[in-house]
Amino acid sequence: MNKNRIEAFSDGVIAIIITIMVLELKVPHGDSLAALVPLLPVFLSYVLSFIYLGIYWNNHHHMLHASREVTGPMLWANLHLLFWLSLIPFTTGWMGENHFSAVPAAVYGVVLLMAAIAYWILQQVIIASQGSGSLLKKAIGRDWKGKLSPAIYALAIASAFRSQWISIGLYVLVALIWLVPDRRIERVLTGGDR
Amino acid sequence: MNKNRIEAFSDGVIAIIITIMVLELKVPHGDSLAALVPLLPVFLSYVLSFIYLGIYWNNHHHMLHASREVTGPMLWANLHLLFWLSLIPFTTGWMGENHFSAVPAAVYGVVLLMAAIAYWILQQVIIASQGSGSLLKKAIGRDWKGKLSPAIYALAIASAFRSQWISIGLYVLVALIWLVPDRRIERVLTGGDR
Amino acid sequence: MNKNRIEAFSDGVIAIIITIMVLELKVPHGDSLAALVPLLPVFLSYVLSFIYLGIYWNNHHHMLHASREVTGPMLWANLHLLFWLSLIPFTTGWMGENHFSAVPAAVYGVVLLMAAIAYWILQQVIIASQGSGSLLKKAIGRDWKGKLSPAIYALAIASAFRSQWISIGLYVLVALIWLVPDRRIERVLTGGDR
Amino acid sequence: MNKNRIEAFSDGVIAIIITIMVLELKVPHGDSLAALVPLLPVFLSYVLSFIYLGIYWNNHHHMLHASREVTGPMLWANLHLLFWLSLIPFTTGWMGENHFSAVPAAVYGVVLLMAAIAYWILQQVIIASQGSGSLLKKAIGRDWKGKLSPAIYALAIASAFRSQWISIGLYVLVALIWLVPDRRIERVLTGGDR
Repeated sequence: MNKNRIEAFSDGVIAIIITIMVLELKVPHGDSLAALVPLLPVFLSYVLSFIYLGIYWNNHHHMLHASREVTGPMLWANLHLLFWLSLIPFTTGWMGENHFSAVPAAVYGVVLLMAAIAYWILQQVIIASQGSGSLLKKAIGRDWKGKLSPAIYALAIASAFRSQWISIGLYVLVALIWLVPDRRIERVLTGGDR
Repeated sequence: MNKNRIEAFSDGVIAIIITIMVLELKVPHGDSLAALVPLLPVFLSYVLSFIYLGIYWNNHHHMLHASREVTGPMLWANLHLLFWLSLIPFTTGWMGENHFSAVPAAVYGVVLLMAAIAYWILQQVIIASQGSGSLLKKAIGRDWKGKLSPAIYALAIASAFRSQWISIGLYVLVALIWLVPDRRIERVLTGGDR
Repeated sequence: MNKNRIEAFSDGVIAIIITIMVLELKVPHGDSLAALVPLLPVFLSYVLSFIYLGIYWNNHHHMLHASREVTGPMLWANLHLLFWLSLIPFTTGWMGENHFSAVPAAVYGVVLLMAAIAYWILQQVIIASQGSGSLLKKAIGRDWKGKLSPAIYALAIASAFRSQWISIGLYVLVALIWLVPDRRIERVLTGGDR
Repeated sequence: MNKNRIEAFSDGVIAIIITIMVLELKVPHGDSLAALVPLLPVFLSYVLSFIYLGIYWNNHHHMLHASREVTGPMLWANLHLLFWLSLIPFTTGWMGENHFSAVPAAVYGVVLLMAAIAYWILQQVIIASQGSGSLLKKAIGRDWKGKLSPAIYALAIASAFRSQWISIGLYVLVALIWLVPDRRIERVLTGGDR
């Protein structure tokens, strides 16, 4: 089995998730600028989730690039990741429509946390399949971003019940950490040292 | 006609089916955890159908991998399979919103049964196109999973009117049977013996 | 510009059209078999449109297979075809929800007619780009199916105001004519005579 | 990282955007031709946006064709473009449902303007990555269409508060300017002079 089809399927699913999310931005009834105001929280949560899905698509890309063959466990670890990503439109809509209130903000973080864990599992499955001298293992290095993110998500979930704005701030922080493009894998692949 | 386009089209349709299914998980009005409780049956039926579609995608993959050329009958047998799979979001939503009541649970099984029959037809069409010494025929062997599943679905449909929980249990059972990755085809393709 | 991307884009659009059409099959409120009865016309119109879109995907495939390069006019003729196909979920839903009443049945035919004309235009654009000795021109031969279909659609549209069942019968007839796989192009491409 | 996956992902997202837009064309309740009349503005705005998305897909195609490798900044500039395009179904639906009233017509232009700016940024990022002697820079020449369009959008936004029909006319004008296929890039790539 070759890598192309798992890439194509993942691309398809992520492209659909990122696009149906916009369906939560429901056309308002009035035709004034004021009619758009209540949509602002939904819009902002859409922007945040769009960036997160972009980051996942981007990193997923690099990760598969560093793997040679596709195994059964990889397929299922990948579907597991896509499952949690598929819940993002729901949590995004819920958080947006409730103007970032506490419980939806916490649940938003739970899905991000589960997606991060699923991503980590997929990464471990690929590394295990590559044996010692794994290209991916070398490429991710100490993987401090991958280890820090779940910790920040957990903190954000706990903080939501004190103030959801701390949670939102932490979600934005993780997005910023990842937005810096992950050149590590590219560097190893192109033969540069870490 | 080459295999890539039938793979790409099937991937696209399955990716969309798996993703629009999540649209049945409608954003609730309240913002408390209690507001999520009524969604639990819809969520659980989503998980079950997500796994089923993952299994179909996975096996479809292996099946096409063991076939060389695409014929007219294969195209239509494939569309026939996609047709039944496309009804899964409907039956999933109906079963979830009615908290796994009897008739929706039975109808859920009817669509699974039809999809299993459509999959079997597609498999036969490919085998017939390959003539004697068919690689796919050799790969699937006695195909006990493919023969057992429709029988279990039929039993599950009949059981729904006694207790729908038997049906649900049987659907979960079939999913578990298939979740064990189907290495038979890979083994034959890579030259190992069965 | 190569053919792959126009194929991939068309596949994507047709896959999405075929799948979002099922969203018109709204989950009913009751949980009895009786609750499904009102959905029967919507289901039947879904089946008919699914077959039509399958036919278009199939023929589109063969047509592009017989063309070498992609030109600007081809891109736009292709988008024009996709535009009319994208209206099929709307006319399908309208016809189904109104139990095949006269006007929706006629409008369903209008969209089919426009799609057939758009398909014909795309075919002519490709033939023109291939110059004399066009492979596609040779492959389609006298193209009696392509010429007969629009005439039947026009008849069906006119008949709807007498009895919509004549129209529906004619739509089914055209689908049956095309369901017989179009081997003409394959034959020419593989060097056989017509 | 290769170009195929960024192309496939962009194709997927644009294909989904173009198709879910048709979901705003809601099936009417009556079954007479009169029931279609209120949908006319929604239909017309759908046609306009379909053409715009077709133009973006087309030009995006040519632009990536003239670029060799994919860099991190290109990925994000591309996602930024897709973000603004993903808002088109929303602004299209809002403008259509409000019969092209002033504010929705202006907001429609704002999203077009942002998409045009995002397209320009992506173009600059690719040119910068190609260094001096950039193939894309040569291909786009003076890029008068790319420079004129944002100016016309800005004029259209300002005009909406005087008469939205001026705005609509300007949107149609920009579409017509671009509909003339952009042969510049093809010409340079095939070695012809400008």
